[in-house]
Amino acid sequence: MSDREAVEPGFDFDRDTAVEDDGLGRFIAEVTDRWNIGIAPNGGYLVSVALSALRASVSKPDPVAVSALFPSRAEPGAARVDVEVLRRGGHDSAVARMTQGDETRVFVTATFGDLGAATGPTAVLEERPEFPPPEECVKAEGGPAPEFVKRFDMRLTPDTAVWATSKPSGRAEMCGWIRFSDGREPDTAALPLIADSFPPTLFNLMSTGWVPTLEFTVHVRGRPAPGWLQCRFRTRYLIEGYLEEDGEVWDSAGNLVGLSRQLARTRG
Amino acid sequence: MSDREAVEPGFDFDRDTAVEDDGLGRFIAEVTDRWNIGIAPNGGYLVSVALSALRASVSKPDPVAVSALFPSRAEPGAARVDVEVLRRGGHDSAVARMTQGDETRVFVTATFGDLGAATGPTAVLEERPEFPPPEECVKAEGGPAPEFVKRFDMRLTPDTAVWATSKPSGRAEMCGWIRFSDGREPDTAALPLIADSFPPTLFNLMSTGWVPTLEFTVHVRGRPAPGWLQCRFRTRYLIEGYLEEDGEVWDSAGNLVGLSRQLARTRG
Repeated sequence: MSDREAVEPGFDFDRDTAVEDDGLGRFIAEVTDRWNIGIAPNGGYLVSVALSALRASVSKPDPVAVSALFPSRAEPGAARVDVEVLRRGGHDSAVARMTQGDETRVFVTATFGDLGAATGPTAVLEERPEFPPPEECVKAEGGPAPEFVKRFDMRLTPDTAVWATSKPSGRAEMCGWIRFSDGREPDTAALPLIADSFPPTLFNLMSTGWVPTLEFTVHVRGRPAPGWLQCRFRTRYLIEGYLEEDGEVWDSAGNLVGLSRQLARTRG
Repeated sequence: MSDREAVEPGFDFDRDTAVEDDGLGRFIAEVTDRWNIGIAPNGGYLVSVALSALRASVSKPDPVAVSALFPSRAEPGAARVDVEVLRRGGHDSAVARMTQGDETRVFVTATFGDLGAATGPTAVLEERPEFPPPEECVKAEGGPAPEFVKRFDMRLTPDTAVWATSKPSGRAEMCGWIRFSDGREPDTAALPLIADSFPPTLFNLMSTGWVPTLEFTVHVRGRPAPGWLQCRFRTRYLIEGYLEEDGEVWDSAGNLVGLSRQLARTRG
């Protein structure tokens, strides 16, 4: 057990997304550098901090729809999150703004429901893809995002890991398995982060630098069972440097638990 | 020429989404009943009114990413739109809130860019579907949305129009062609409305009432050429009454110009 764990028990994700309520719909957070991609905190991590404040402000447990903009680049350090609840009842909805100094870093809109109590028709019209099991996949380590990658056990399928060792596969996909490295089990609070955790699909289409996100939306569709999450990210339309990245997340029971989409843009 | 056109020239869409700036980042709008689905204004129409105010507040012309929540049901009549710009430069981003009385009707986040000046790599990795031409498709008329449908010339493919005349096709798709009935050509301002204009995909899966939207996101990916827009909406995952509706919009030149997704929920 490290010194840090001795003084701050619990799991990395919960500790690093915790917020403190000042009782006025304003929350204080500490953005850590442990979820950095290069010098900047991962977008999904920042959204998770905002979601902690949102969840504390509404009466429903599950963030069924979450959208985020990133007006300026966040830095590790203190941050404030202001929440406004737009609606209570049926589904709750609310918006959150994370600021550092006078700068808005993240703006999140969210709709909360209770997936544990949801009843209605079900029809799953697409098959879950078959991947090689985690032990036959390629563990992501180091690379351009050493801090972020340490927080997870992430395994890319051999087909989609080739960009890292040889060259882009030619198919704009990134697939594999993921779980937290410290044993924290997945839940609906963690799914937005999971949906922003894989390397960009574009790495399998061309040699490129990082691909900044313009807009990020996640739909949480179920409460995940414990264990590995299976993820597939795909891009169909890269047009003049703009691309969508569409994600699907399944839990260890084989159920779809998240759908995501982001609009991103190549640099330069 | 009707009396109305005599006093208010121009196209329906532009006239009915116009806003008046009070000079303080606050806009006055009139929500008309001409885009109603039943007794409520269509969500894409309300988003378009908010976008008029947003577009007047930023320096970039094209709403490349637009997300919306609908905390309460709007009614035809006066509305106010408050805009806050979050970022200027590179891509502009801003949020807008439409209110009637004290109630927030729509909350929109948007990112604006200049698609006319965009340069970067292009790779279109999925084929555009082939539909029968508009004259071989089924014109949408009357039904549960008579006012809304009048604003368009909408043609459903025979395969996906069957719900209206016989029974659901069994495939959760809605496909076809659309243009404004008054001859207004499509542009990036109109694409969010277009992406919310077709009947719910669920009508081809089961007998169901209307399917309220919880969250709606559109990515505008190109400036459409004049003429028909080709649209495909599909649902893959209906889970305990929650479903996504994924849309693709192509212009008459065959280029993808919009991607949309909404999270919706069956009633009851």
